[in-house]
Amino acid sequence: MTKSSSSLPLPAVARRMDRVSSFLAMDVLSAAAAKERRGDSVVHMEVGQPSAPAPRAAREAAKAAIETGRIGYTEALGTAALRERIAWHYRDVYGVSLAPERVVVTTGSSAGFVLAFLSLFDPGQRVAITAPGYPAYRNILEALDLEPVVIPLTKADGWIMTAQAVEKAHAEKPLHGILAMSPANPSGTMIGRQVLAALGATCRRLGLWFISDEIYHGLTYGEAASTALTSDDDAVVINSFSKYYCMTGWRIGWIVVPERLVRPIERLAQNLYISPPYLSQVAALAAFDAAEELEAVKEGYARNRAYLLEELPRLGITEMHPVDGAFYIYADISRFTNDSIGFTKRMLEEAGVAATPGLDFDPVEGSHYLRLSFAGSENDCREAVARLATWLK
Amino acid sequence: MTKSSSSLPLPAVARRMDRVSSFLAMDVLSAAAAKERRGDSVVHMEVGQPSAPAPRAAREAAKAAIETGRIGYTEALGTAALRERIAWHYRDVYGVSLAPERVVVTTGSSAGFVLAFLSLFDPGQRVAITAPGYPAYRNILEALDLEPVVIPLTKADGWIMTAQAVEKAHAEKPLHGILAMSPANPSGTMIGRQVLAALGATCRRLGLWFISDEIYHGLTYGEAASTALTSDDDAVVINSFSKYYCMTGWRIGWIVVPERLVRPIERLAQNLYISPPYLSQVAALAAFDAAEELEAVKEGYARNRAYLLEELPRLGITEMHPVDGAFYIYADISRFTNDSIGFTKRMLEEAGVAATPGLDFDPVEGSHYLRLSFAGSENDCREAVARLATWLK
Repeated sequence: MTKSSSSLPLPAVARRMDRVSSFLAMDVLSAAAAKERRGDSVVHMEVGQPSAPAPRAAREAAKAAIETGRIGYTEALGTAALRERIAWHYRDVYGVSLAPERVVVTTGSSAGFVLAFLSLFDPGQRVAITAPGYPAYRNILEALDLEPVVIPLTKADGWIMTAQAVEKAHAEKPLHGILAMSPANPSGTMIGRQVLAALGATCRRLGLWFISDEIYHGLTYGEAASTALTSDDDAVVINSFSKYYCMTGWRIGWIVVPERLVRPIERLAQNLYISPPYLSQVAALAAFDAAEELEAVKEGYARNRAYLLEELPRLGITEMHPVDGAFYIYADISRFTNDSIGFTKRMLEEAGVAATPGLDFDPVEGSHYLRLSFAGSENDCREAVARLATWLK
Repeated sequence: MTKSSSSLPLPAVARRMDRVSSFLAMDVLSAAAAKERRGDSVVHMEVGQPSAPAPRAAREAAKAAIETGRIGYTEALGTAALRERIAWHYRDVYGVSLAPERVVVTTGSSAGFVLAFLSLFDPGQRVAITAPGYPAYRNILEALDLEPVVIPLTKADGWIMTAQAVEKAHAEKPLHGILAMSPANPSGTMIGRQVLAALGATCRRLGLWFISDEIYHGLTYGEAASTALTSDDDAVVINSFSKYYCMTGWRIGWIVVPERLVRPIERLAQNLYISPPYLSQVAALAAFDAAEELEAVKEGYARNRAYLLEELPRLGITEMHPVDGAFYIYADISRFTNDSIGFTKRMLEEAGVAATPGLDFDPVEGSHYLRLSFAGSENDCREAVARLATWLK
């Protein structure tokens, strides 16, 4: 047969591909893996995933499902049992009453963002996000031809998105929605109940969609996190089983949407995903019964957090965003460098400690920030501190 | 706290939501389930998924993975082992040599379409599909603000997309890509090697992307299916473990792309999916070793197909598209009705046989077509024929 590939050039790729960047964290991951293949030891502080496995109950439920039945498609919005259990979770944890029909089970929070963005926004519409913030926000918005509008966080505002900042951005050029995260990645900083309520009320007043990313809920070290639904029943809430429930690789999460969005999102989900993975839905349902095991994992994070907050300042890492929740420390390292990418490269190469450069989360100020994950073991944290103590000298 | 929901109206949903329709097949599924809950018996000929479970080797591999390790994220493009095994599959089955780097593991073929469309096409660009055809094509294209251009299939052309039809459509108004499927859903009709090569060559000549959906490969009843890669190394090939490998609910598939697309698609995949589900990747790798079991499942389909092709004409269902592969019969029922939705409703209600109305696959001619799936048991087929024999009188 004739092969056509050599003779004629390929058409161009989509223009959006110029705007979608890769995760720097993934590059660190690759570099760390390469170093390990050379026989060197690496302490992993770069990875945003729990080192603990999914809870036993979840794993047992998945195994039982494999043994007993066909792993088929489910309803596009997820199984009725899981949607009901998630709705109950809101009553249980937040005292919020929620119709199970408003719960949409998704293939990780990744699918939640795609479903939310596509159902809420038309091409070119503007969505406010923060810097620092989760890099996929910007990239998913760009991939879907939406415009990310970056609100830089400030120390004066407590490093969170405020209603005032949203009003200001909207006044400059109209927004169509905002996306807030609490506890936040990369910092773990939380938005309190009052500010969340103000964000919701502001969105209602200005006619904006309010998307609240709550995927680190459950992982808090002082006050518990508030859901945006407490004060704004029309908020679109994103959540996931990846973090608190230790189920990253299962790719399972959920969103809560206003009732009138359920059918549009169902049509999108049928076509874009067919259904979330079956086994992951079975396992997720069982994970709600694993509180004891999951709280023990969280206590490990709390110990790691306390240890690092004690030790890092002794190494000269003194300026951090408030670590209210999640499992990250986001530290200002301007004392050491203004090139966070080069710094993390050398830190990996010379000290054997992998961390994520701030530029992943903030294209401007991130040049002098670093994210350290403490989702690993206590030993990892101690070893990282010991190595950094020598290296930072 | 104040609830903002009751006081102010929500912003509008995205305009694209007017253009994304639901699957009629899903509505049939719901109606069939409701009938069963009332205690009635239903023969399921509407569902496009194998009734057999995933092969034993795949299930055992998943169970072992649950027992031994953490189910974490993988590389965004899938595990190296699975990508290599898929590349080998091309050498093995088609004699096509393929670098494993060009294989992208996806969360079902659904993710394959999204990654392909977003990386290849800019908003408003035109992609040719066929009628009849898989309804999600149109809906995913619409959801991503692309324009589906429908090429109606004709008996004269053997019910397949031809290079001539593509040229004609392109001459009327320029296309940016085409999407062909062989064996096809809803009909099972195959595009032979020569026509595939002509489609590829035509795309190269006209500067179009050529996407070849090959998810029913392996399920053929005469000649084996050809991959577009045999004649066109630049084709973007979509495939899945859902059909031949009986792994629908695992949500795992793959695409093969030209080398220069690998990095753009990796960036998209990192942001839109993070990674495909871990357990499904482990199970998929093992599924390649289950040829004996999978061939036995296929022999069951072959018996069902032969039985239906013998019996349906006796019931007056004589006009069908060629059933070369897949597990569907797409039949012209203009002798009975010009309202396929009403017809399938009555067929379900009165005869207890669930089938999918042709309008799901073809908004025009589908009014007098019906799709019957024979992926179920031999008993299902016999019972369906018996019920229809009585009912069609």
